[in-house]
Amino acid sequence: MIHETTASMAEWRVKLRSRLGDDIVLSESADMLPYCRDWHGDVTSNAVAVLRPRSTEQVAQAVKLCSELGLSIVPQGGNTGLVLGAVPDADANQVVLSLERMNRIRQIDADDFSAVVEAGCILSELKDAIAEKGMFFPLALGAQGTCRIGGNVSTNAGGINVLRYGMTRELIFGLEVVLPDGSIFDGLSTLRKDNRGIDLKQLFIGAEGTLGIITAVSVKLTPYPDQVATALLGLASLDDAIKLFRRARRDCCDLMSAFEFMPPLAFTLAKEAMPDLPIPIAADYPAYVLMEISGSGLVDIDDLMGRFLEAVMEEGIVLDGTLAASQTQARNLWLIREGMNEGQAKRGMHLRTDVSVKLSQLADFVAEAERAVAEAVPGSTCVSYGHVGDGNVHLNVLPAAEAEPEQRLEQIYVAKGAINAVLDRYQGSISAEHGIGRLKRGDFEARLSPVRRHLLTALKQAIDPGMVMNPGCQLNFPANS
Amino acid sequence: MIHETTASMAEWRVKLRSRLGDDIVLSESADMLPYCRDWHGDVTSNAVAVLRPRSTEQVAQAVKLCSELGLSIVPQGGNTGLVLGAVPDADANQVVLSLERMNRIRQIDADDFSAVVEAGCILSELKDAIAEKGMFFPLALGAQGTCRIGGNVSTNAGGINVLRYGMTRELIFGLEVVLPDGSIFDGLSTLRKDNRGIDLKQLFIGAEGTLGIITAVSVKLTPYPDQVATALLGLASLDDAIKLFRRARRDCCDLMSAFEFMPPLAFTLAKEAMPDLPIPIAADYPAYVLMEISGSGLVDIDDLMGRFLEAVMEEGIVLDGTLAASQTQARNLWLIREGMNEGQAKRGMHLRTDVSVKLSQLADFVAEAERAVAEAVPGSTCVSYGHVGDGNVHLNVLPAAEAEPEQRLEQIYVAKGAINAVLDRYQGSISAEHGIGRLKRGDFEARLSPVRRHLLTALKQAIDPGMVMNPGCQLNFPANS
Repeated sequence: MIHETTASMAEWRVKLRSRLGDDIVLSESADMLPYCRDWHGDVTSNAVAVLRPRSTEQVAQAVKLCSELGLSIVPQGGNTGLVLGAVPDADANQVVLSLERMNRIRQIDADDFSAVVEAGCILSELKDAIAEKGMFFPLALGAQGTCRIGGNVSTNAGGINVLRYGMTRELIFGLEVVLPDGSIFDGLSTLRKDNRGIDLKQLFIGAEGTLGIITAVSVKLTPYPDQVATALLGLASLDDAIKLFRRARRDCCDLMSAFEFMPPLAFTLAKEAMPDLPIPIAADYPAYVLMEISGSGLVDIDDLMGRFLEAVMEEGIVLDGTLAASQTQARNLWLIREGMNEGQAKRGMHLRTDVSVKLSQLADFVAEAERAVAEAVPGSTCVSYGHVGDGNVHLNVLPAAEAEPEQRLEQIYVAKGAINAVLDRYQGSISAEHGIGRLKRGDFEARLSPVRRHLLTALKQAIDPGMVMNPGCQLNFPANS
Repeated sequence: MIHETTASMAEWRVKLRSRLGDDIVLSESADMLPYCRDWHGDVTSNAVAVLRPRSTEQVAQAVKLCSELGLSIVPQGGNTGLVLGAVPDADANQVVLSLERMNRIRQIDADDFSAVVEAGCILSELKDAIAEKGMFFPLALGAQGTCRIGGNVSTNAGGINVLRYGMTRELIFGLEVVLPDGSIFDGLSTLRKDNRGIDLKQLFIGAEGTLGIITAVSVKLTPYPDQVATALLGLASLDDAIKLFRRARRDCCDLMSAFEFMPPLAFTLAKEAMPDLPIPIAADYPAYVLMEISGSGLVDIDDLMGRFLEAVMEEGIVLDGTLAASQTQARNLWLIREGMNEGQAKRGMHLRTDVSVKLSQLADFVAEAERAVAEAVPGSTCVSYGHVGDGNVHLNVLPAAEAEPEQRLEQIYVAKGAINAVLDRYQGSISAEHGIGRLKRGDFEARLSPVRRHLLTALKQAIDPGMVMNPGCQLNFPANS
């Protein structure tokens, strides 16, 4: 949808510069490129401008001006999203508003178990600063060296510690948000308990910038878990892995912090990405679990892991296992998990999914979906792995090695259809943690009940009647005009 | 605001009966009384009728009919709310819609760590049924033998286990809600992770029935904590109690499940309510903490509590303590906490508050607020106790014993003003867990920023444009007309 000619593109840029200042506005294509291309490099788009405000007030000013000029806004954090929620689409009247310059940690209060941070702070920098005070912010994901906390909140990011600490939503005390009319919602409280009616901040968590721009966040801290036990275990099946999870959930109580499932192919893929990576377990078990228990203070984590592994190996649920004897060894076990991702990327364009079903149906679902893919796309390879304790797997599909780019696209499309057809029978979710963005909008809308659509539309109209915020993301509302 | 004459009251009742059936409708004053009087008996009101549907479809039918007749609806669960959110006010066109007959547990799936239950199920019945399957639903509050899960969700109830498991919001996977237009929002999934955009169910949690009627809930279960260690500890001050909490949070990690602060007066009050209750600790320490650690499986809870107490007593943070040696002894310790509440009730009408501030400021706040009350209401007695690990205290005020009813009311009013003035300086919350209802509406509205008011109004208009749902609760929107 092209609203304006190139002439007015130039006019917009002049107005943005004159009103917001040259310092804030990028408009050269080369400068804008990193903000207009997604994390995987699948999509490269363009924008009227990229705005890089330094303060909440500048964000508010930018929002008001864009609204006045008829421009819509795509908010962006670290641009590590996996569903094209933070890059502009083909529409010609979009600006990207990057929060990257709002990266200050405003306060870390260990005595209050809280911190306040601007949206553009890189997650790992926040985690490190918090760790220096002996505290811990549990959100942990592969992109943490690049993603920014505002984006994590906007997408309600998941990651490897969800089973213990919850999604990002559960780690948040408060938010500061610039609303589509340029007003500022000041909800940056660090109160642990505040039950004054409808909790407005919930609206913006997971909204992917469609209702406002998160500019700052207050987060919940826990004591730093200075004891960590990490084990890589070999099992007979995914079904046994789920049995093991149930057992661990009870035996290790609330001290289990990660439980990741991997197929044997994980090692091959990890080796393709990191040839020198040590693999300290035989690679011929049908299923693997990377498990972590952690804690602080008087609990004895090593002892707990030891007794747990002894019990489950004696019972035959776990066939083989290796326990990290040092932080380096633990890090190397996690590198297998990360290398598996890189290895998939090295094999070229492939289907990435992020689905969830009921935990009690997960093994059946994966078996059925993998069969469906094998039938629909002969020669392709399924890589099913992930946060099985949450009922969440990344059931990815690598097209046949010999497939040409167009064939790959076709195979990805067909495989996705096959998986989703099974998923729908299991009443699963097409997005357990990545969000909807623009990538999954079609699949999302196709499954949206009329009641939900009505509520989402009513909400959008109530909060962003001008349809300024992130058009085309999540739902295809009419653009502002 | 009287909309209609008594004649149309009769007409309404006839129409309700003829369209919904006699079985559903109560309209005799004596029958309606228990639904029109609040838990504490402070307010007795009246209603056009009390509707008691047996199914979601009947709720939807009732909502549509009320909307058609110009009646507004006050949803009610167990009617144990503390802020008059579930009893009608003086308005003449209100019906109470009680969920008490929708009390089926639809499903408990221990393998999935989930259960699905209708809104009218009594909390303790749900907890018991879940415990029979070896699982645990952590919501725990004094009213649990009477309150109903739908009301718990509508008020986002807190209770004694919040510090470990979170508020009700964090215990919920999904909701079924009848919306103000009579349509049904079917969000009863038990997926642990589902990140498909804006999380609509969050709107209804804590909305106290102002946006719809919760008819069923799917909840998150954890393994049953079959090991519990309970201790009652004597300390030198609230400040030391908070130090102890910080220490316990680190030393006992995520295994601490309760940490309740009580003043020495707790014992006097408990004895007034339960004269035979054993008090197994000297009653002359300035501060007490009732602390619980719990867990399942391979963790050794008794050992952990033992080592923790040894350390903190050696360091002098804890001056004296008693550890429950049996379930009966643990139960008796909790009876002190409950008896303290009953004892306050026995002393007659008094101020009950439910405030929170930053944990790091709690001791200062309580000292300052108690001084302010002592100055403003000489002869009154402050009873400050509660969930200090959450920064949440019930800073209650008992008027002077000799005060007449009118004086008591006056003293309560003055004491509340004194506390709130201090609370505002600390940027605290007037409702940490009880909600707003009608009781706190004035205090809530007085502190509401224009941006929040705008958002709440926009939300209400978007979802309940006819203003059918729970008028006068939380905010004073115009009634439907």
